[in-house]
Amino acid sequence: MFISFEGTEGVGKSTLIVKLHAFLQAQQREVVLTREPGGTPLAERIRSLLLSTEQQEDIHYDTELLLMYAARAQHLAQVILPALQAGKIVLCDRFCDASYAYQCAGRGLSAEKLQLLNQHFVARLPDLTFWLDAPVDLGMQRATQRGALDRFEQEKLSFFSQVRHGYQQLQQQEPSRIKRIDATQSAEQVYAEALQHIQQFDGF
Amino acid sequence: MFISFEGTEGVGKSTLIVKLHAFLQAQQREVVLTREPGGTPLAERIRSLLLSTEQQEDIHYDTELLLMYAARAQHLAQVILPALQAGKIVLCDRFCDASYAYQCAGRGLSAEKLQLLNQHFVARLPDLTFWLDAPVDLGMQRATQRGALDRFEQEKLSFFSQVRHGYQQLQQQEPSRIKRIDATQSAEQVYAEALQHIQQFDGF
Ligand SMILES: Nc1ncnc2c1ncn2[C@@H]1O[C@H](COP(=O)(O)OP(=O)(O)OP(=O)(O)O)[C@@H](O)[C@H]1O
Ligand SMILES: Nc1ncnc2c1ncn2[C@@H]1O[C@H](COP(=O)(O)OP(=O)(O)OP(=O)(O)O)[C@@H](O)[C@H]1O
Ligand SMILES: [Mg+2]
Ligand SMILES: [Mg+2]
Repeated sequence: MFISFEGTEGVGKSTLIVKLHAFLQAQQREVVLTREPGGTPLAERIRSLLLSTEQQEDIHYDTELLLMYAARAQHLAQVILPALQAGKIVLCDRFCDASYAYQCAGRGLSAEKLQLLNQHFVARLPDLTFWLDAPVDLGMQRATQRGALDRFEQEKLSFFSQVRHGYQQLQQQEPSRIKRIDATQSAEQVYAEALQHIQQFDGF
Repeated sequence: MFISFEGTEGVGKSTLIVKLHAFLQAQQREVVLTREPGGTPLAERIRSLLLSTEQQEDIHYDTELLLMYAARAQHLAQVILPALQAGKIVLCDRFCDASYAYQCAGRGLSAEKLQLLNQHFVARLPDLTFWLDAPVDLGMQRATQRGALDRFEQEKLSFFSQVRHGYQQLQQQEPSRIKRIDATQSAEQVYAEALQHIQQFDGF
């Protein structure tokens, strides 16, 4: 079972993953906890290129997108697919939907470009995706309290509104895979809702 | 005018570029000398990821291809297209043909995948491409004399035979853009032949 966690900055993805991880481990399930961009040593090096605020040059949007998919290809081949084949549960902090939300809805890249990358370089989509949805300023407030902002977090609120709208479009297109959870709720309520979806999931 | 230089390791690309650069500068032409993967600070950082022999993991072929195209997107946007727009001559050590030769003919990735990347992420192909062709062991001998081998140079001779065959296929498909030069000749002869092609080039 492959579960991804999506949403704008600071909505509570990592908080939810940690709770679900603890629950599943207590159930004696083998769980792999991972994140994007990243998840392997090489993919984490690509992540630093993507998130660094110390660029000597603007990163072109195509470059950003292709770096994301380079990291993803490595992550899938080295971590996600082997774990799923071994019957483990994979909890992944962001996946393909983030590329649509950030690079297409946010940056304005064509959805067709993204679809081609998905078709040719992504062998497996999540079985279940939690979209933690909250007004973008709420998440930004939570994230800002954590310290220095990365290259994405430094974007304007209007950018994150577009990203949020992108997630909404995806959720409407794929309601059976993507579950919206109201992230203005308490962390406990978010967790309870996510757990319910997991337990309802066929084959769990 | 956009000219690229192709061929397996050590066939004499850099040697030829230096000679042509000197000639064109003596003609008062504005010339930009660049290379792939690389050509911008970020693209050079991607180059180090690609060529490093100190990987903690195997680089998946898709990852390699996508990293190449991420570097290329950045290089095109930051260096090549602006230089061409300003009327400069761009001399580029390797370009798209290398991706076909190394990743498709060499690694076995599908040509269709590559074509999609070219269509969606490469706004401009070279006007003229010099393919320096020589038996692969000759170039490897020349390259080995230079010192430590990078991740590609460490490949087996059979890999480079496939790469060479890939270049041959491309040259047969696009004989008007891609000029084969016999690289077993002396560096002076190679240079003389290349210069002739440039001078014949329409609009020069
Ligand atoms: N439901 C919640 N209510 C209130 N605070 C929360 C809630 N969920 C998480 N937080 C707090 O908000 C902050 C951001 O949460 P968290 O790191 O889980 O978000 P995130 O979505 O993983 O952020 P990022 O996108 O930056 O990785 C943390 O300080 C966390 O404790
Ligand atoms: N035509 C030639 N005849 C003999 N030696 C040559 C010739 N061209 C280049 N060399 C020598 O061969 C070595 C490799 O040449 P060069 O660095 O130009 O190749 P390259 O194609 O740029 O290699 P790489 O693919 O590793 O960048 C150098 O020592 C160079 O002086
Ligand atoms: Mg997080
Ligand atoms: Mg060279």
